[in-house]
Amino acid sequence: MGKRIVVALGGNALGKNLPEQMAAVKRTAAAIVDLIQEGDDVVIAHGNGPQVGMIQEAMTQLTRSDPDRYIPCPLSVCVAMSQGYIGYDLQNALREEMLDRGIDRGAATVLTQVEVDPADPAFDHPTKPIGAFMTREEADRLVRERDYQVVEDAGRGWRRVVASPRPKGIVEIDTIRSLVESDHVVIACGGGGIPVYPTQGHHLKGAAAVIDKDFAAARLAEQLDADVLVILTAVEKVAVHFGKPDQQWLDELTPEVAQRYIDEGEFAPGSMLPKVQAALQFAQSAPGRTALITELQKARDGIAGRTGTRVHA
Amino acid sequence: MGKRIVVALGGNALGKNLPEQMAAVKRTAAAIVDLIQEGDDVVIAHGNGPQVGMIQEAMTQLTRSDPDRYIPCPLSVCVAMSQGYIGYDLQNALREEMLDRGIDRGAATVLTQVEVDPADPAFDHPTKPIGAFMTREEADRLVRERDYQVVEDAGRGWRRVVASPRPKGIVEIDTIRSLVESDHVVIACGGGGIPVYPTQGHHLKGAAAVIDKDFAAARLAEQLDADVLVILTAVEKVAVHFGKPDQQWLDELTPEVAQRYIDEGEFAPGSMLPKVQAALQFAQSAPGRTALITELQKARDGIAGRTGTRVHA
Repeated sequence: MGKRIVVALGGNALGKNLPEQMAAVKRTAAAIVDLIQEGDDVVIAHGNGPQVGMIQEAMTQLTRSDPDRYIPCPLSVCVAMSQGYIGYDLQNALREEMLDRGIDRGAATVLTQVEVDPADPAFDHPTKPIGAFMTREEADRLVRERDYQVVEDAGRGWRRVVASPRPKGIVEIDTIRSLVESDHVVIACGGGGIPVYPTQGHHLKGAAAVIDKDFAAARLAEQLDADVLVILTAVEKVAVHFGKPDQQWLDELTPEVAQRYIDEGEFAPGSMLPKVQAALQFAQSAPGRTALITELQKARDGIAGRTGTRVHA
Repeated sequence: MGKRIVVALGGNALGKNLPEQMAAVKRTAAAIVDLIQEGDDVVIAHGNGPQVGMIQEAMTQLTRSDPDRYIPCPLSVCVAMSQGYIGYDLQNALREEMLDRGIDRGAATVLTQVEVDPADPAFDHPTKPIGAFMTREEADRLVRERDYQVVEDAGRGWRRVVASPRPKGIVEIDTIRSLVESDHVVIACGGGGIPVYPTQGHHLKGAAAVIDKDFAAARLAEQLDADVLVILTAVEKVAVHFGKPDQQWLDELTPEVAQRYIDEGEFAPGSMLPKVQAALQFAQSAPGRTALITELQKARDGIAGRTGTRVHA
């Protein structure tokens, strides 16, 4: 019986514009179908940085072209659009690659909301710049009228910044589980998921936030009781003393050692740090769970234990 | 045991911009959950005219702002984005309304591709205008560089026109069926579905087309072996001799009578005609199938046989 695997795909696996994405999803699909061919169940979470940036920019241009008609588009809505945009190409590439290899499984994109905590301290210090550069006047108006938070990027203008809170739970988890159990390859939590929080009654409100896709994938893997979380990145393995004479590639990490390296500042914030933190979170969440950090082309070898950095108890 | 119902929602059930959509989906969800509360399984297909128009316009403004960086966005990609945009609000409104009434069922949006025939005669005579008005120069360039077909709208500029081919089959039908069978309320075939056609091998290529959402819903209902197809519109019943002294509201139509009225030109093309055609197609597809044309607020009464126009053998 196969393993249940959640794979977190980075932006570099998807390309920065439409033609790049078409080419990138083909390579990505080939590597993912390698895992499926081993008999494993695969669920794919993915980032959306360049893609949601493009959509946000388009919606900003739309508002600029006719401000009376089009209000600024909430970030949560842009994330929903990006899930459609990326899911379409990715599920198609997976479908095609599977059929080419004689594998008869559906590929499905589930529009996914992810709950965050409005009291998450990340909301007090939004740091993630998103969308187009603006003039001082545009920025001031959005601060005044829509409560945006903005920062100046020296010389290039002003940009909106949003929070990056931790994911609490996947709203559509039952949908994803149903599809996995009926033999589908599922794409979910695109862009880390549409960030929402509960307000009055059962209403979910979109949050001005982006959720890190590696943390969203870790939460998804926990809730699906996955065996392996694969966090894909640009390098084959994680290193300590990175770029120094005593640089050392890591094969295996216990949660304790991973935590010690994190505390010692071994991993770059916004880069390898969140990946190791997400891996650690999953590895600690229940016995028998393994997180693997490696590059796309090494995923199959990594799951077989031949390369990559594995975090497990 | 409940019935299996496919509901086709029109654009007026969704609103023309973001705030309108938020309000419209609430009313729509209340009427849909009335059906669910009767114990029926409901699958929702929906239009996307104003929504995909907004997204196309935004993507056009993006290309205008930086033509070297952003190529024109294919219509199929805009439809995919619109499925994310509409599905997000609609599944949320359904989820909230169900929870408010103590109904514990998932609401899920399935990103849906619908296959069309590249030999469909509709491709020879594209008639459906989409997207922003353009100058003569912009239109000429798109004709030259991207093979667009355009028409002049007297006084307002040039617009792209695309074909509206008939749907052959729903690519993600197994995904939709799995979710219906695991008790989900499913949103599928948004905007009539992302139009695709097979090219080399198993590749599906996006088509420059829009599929009528009523025909897509009829095909979906057939493939799901639904009991009832509900086509929602702005009036409670279909009429013949519409607007004339002998106007007559219709309660029941056999396929034969429906076909006769169609042949006699009783129904307006682009308005009631495709709805009656789609209803007829479903009613004829297998014994025991009923199509109902009515307005949103009468859907429950219509399914109970108390109003609306029913087409069945």
